[in-house]
Amino acid sequence: MEQIAVLGAGSWGTALAMVLADNAHSVRLWGQRPEQIKEINEKRTNEKYLPGIQLPEGITGYSSLSEALEAIDTAVLAVPTKAIREVLRKVKQCLRQPITIVTVSKGIEPDTHKRISEIIEEEMGTLLQDVVVLSGPSHAEEVSLRHPTTVTVSSKNMTAAERVQDLFMNSQYFRVYTNPDLIGIEIGGALKNIIALAAGITDGLGYGDNAKAALITRGLAEIARLGCALGANPLTFSGLAGIGDLIVTCTSVHSRNWRAGHLLGKGNPLDEVLQSMGMVVEGVRTTKAAHQLAKKLNVKMPITEVLYDVLFNGKDPKEGADSLMARMKTNEMEDLINILEK
Amino acid sequence: MEQIAVLGAGSWGTALAMVLADNAHSVRLWGQRPEQIKEINEKRTNEKYLPGIQLPEGITGYSSLSEALEAIDTAVLAVPTKAIREVLRKVKQCLRQPITIVTVSKGIEPDTHKRISEIIEEEMGTLLQDVVVLSGPSHAEEVSLRHPTTVTVSSKNMTAAERVQDLFMNSQYFRVYTNPDLIGIEIGGALKNIIALAAGITDGLGYGDNAKAALITRGLAEIARLGCALGANPLTFSGLAGIGDLIVTCTSVHSRNWRAGHLLGKGNPLDEVLQSMGMVVEGVRTTKAAHQLAKKLNVKMPITEVLYDVLFNGKDPKEGADSLMARMKTNEMEDLINILEK
Repeated sequence: MEQIAVLGAGSWGTALAMVLADNAHSVRLWGQRPEQIKEINEKRTNEKYLPGIQLPEGITGYSSLSEALEAIDTAVLAVPTKAIREVLRKVKQCLRQPITIVTVSKGIEPDTHKRISEIIEEEMGTLLQDVVVLSGPSHAEEVSLRHPTTVTVSSKNMTAAERVQDLFMNSQYFRVYTNPDLIGIEIGGALKNIIALAAGITDGLGYGDNAKAALITRGLAEIARLGCALGANPLTFSGLAGIGDLIVTCTSVHSRNWRAGHLLGKGNPLDEVLQSMGMVVEGVRTTKAAHQLAKKLNVKMPITEVLYDVLFNGKDPKEGADSLMARMKTNEMEDLINILEK
Repeated sequence: MEQIAVLGAGSWGTALAMVLADNAHSVRLWGQRPEQIKEINEKRTNEKYLPGIQLPEGITGYSSLSEALEAIDTAVLAVPTKAIREVLRKVKQCLRQPITIVTVSKGIEPDTHKRISEIIEEEMGTLLQDVVVLSGPSHAEEVSLRHPTTVTVSSKNMTAAERVQDLFMNSQYFRVYTNPDLIGIEIGGALKNIIALAAGITDGLGYGDNAKAALITRGLAEIARLGCALGANPLTFSGLAGIGDLIVTCTSVHSRNWRAGHLLGKGNPLDEVLQSMGMVVEGVRTTKAAHQLAKKLNVKMPITEVLYDVLFNGKDPKEGADSLMARMKTNEMEDLINILEK
């Protein structure tokens, strides 16, 4: 039994806090809004993010970051990707000794092209023990209902990853694999949001399941191409944090990125869509970063390119989707072999 | 423009006949029931299989097999897998010269363990020019609505595959790739039905999207393991006839195999489920064949094994699903690397 801090009381942070509490750990769930923390501690609910769910006793809410982090060894970081640097700067000020950070956020930073674990290393410096990435097909809503869920953890230090595996794993509903391919796990998690946006667009256009399955398949190939150019193992993309997470994100109406794409496909303008979502649509930032990376590394990413033009150059979504369909007839294997050769 | 016979006037045969007719070919659509052929020719509909769809003028229905095959070079074979040998024996009696057969049926024969193309070679003998396999994520209903669809063709003779690619490909809605890995394309198409049955069961049990995505991911890994043991290229399973077809079959309520699994997961007994379906559930036969093959080739196929026990040994579906979740914690990469090493 350990004391663990979970930073970020959104749906995923709260659901993971529940898993840890179910495994008999003592969890300090930190959130910025005092009224939310009060709700968590007094009503044992977090209605905005996990409506109808009763939180287990092992979770205590904290609105003070320094209290949440006092004398702990491990913190789960579950804040929006955009906020990570800012939160970590505050975290550092609270620490007297290095901690292990488990990151569950997804994305690549535009311009720097850094993965989340790299951002954490950069910000934390000597106050970082290890950084472990947790990723895989996992809607928070289903985890909070204790539906069977399977994820993968990875780290430069696999002993740290195995320790995190032990913290989260249980035989009832939460199964954790390890995979030493940190780059592949992070790239798969980040780039799936691009394909989810595109899948939302084709669904919004009414193109159907055949088109979506083709898009997911071709999307996986271009994710793998970029991942391998960055040093990932191509096999990782056939695993839970690759195709597994991609399937869940592209086929569920729960996915924020899919929903934004769906509204775009229905003909709504981008700025209205982003405003109406009321939350960050991570795929938009990631599309920009991946577009830059593909150019720099000379990797063919046709879906990302088309989506970039739709998001940033005013291309019509239907024209974009049709141009993907109309590419010259080709040998599928040549395309797939590119994954291994790039 | 060519004369092409399509043998089998079910939903997939009829939808493919429509693609060929849209591409300006003259199509002879053969079916066994004279009243269905009359409907096709007089009303230009095939209501039982493609409700609400108007058939293009280029399709003519035939209830005489010898008339449908007269002086043609290419026949598309779209009959249930179980009926293939019987239909081919009749086809042979109608032919004076060898023809090319395009097969779109999925499965592996129990006991002989033959793929469909091998069954066709065996039955046709010297009356076979080439056999070409067409597979990929493609609901017939969506193709008949001309929704964008992408498939793969393969053959021992890739010149024949390219000719079939040209027959079916159009720039409006039907995109055709080639892939020389005939074994991989056929195994992917056959074994997806096993995973679709299993996915239906977990959905019927109410396990949710996280569990289904994990099942599809692990299912793809075991399909690839068996495929590679049979000589397939592992990359094929990352393509349209692998993961693409698997996604469509596991996430759509249109899939017959998924529906049968769903009823099993809801607690209905197998014999009642099969009776209520009113059509062949191909995945049941394929599970038997794959179970035999996995034993013979010493390939680990945990999902297939559990499903076999549910279908043929009276194992409780919930117990089966839970036993898959409870397998020991493990290194995902070791599991994935097995694909390449088997």
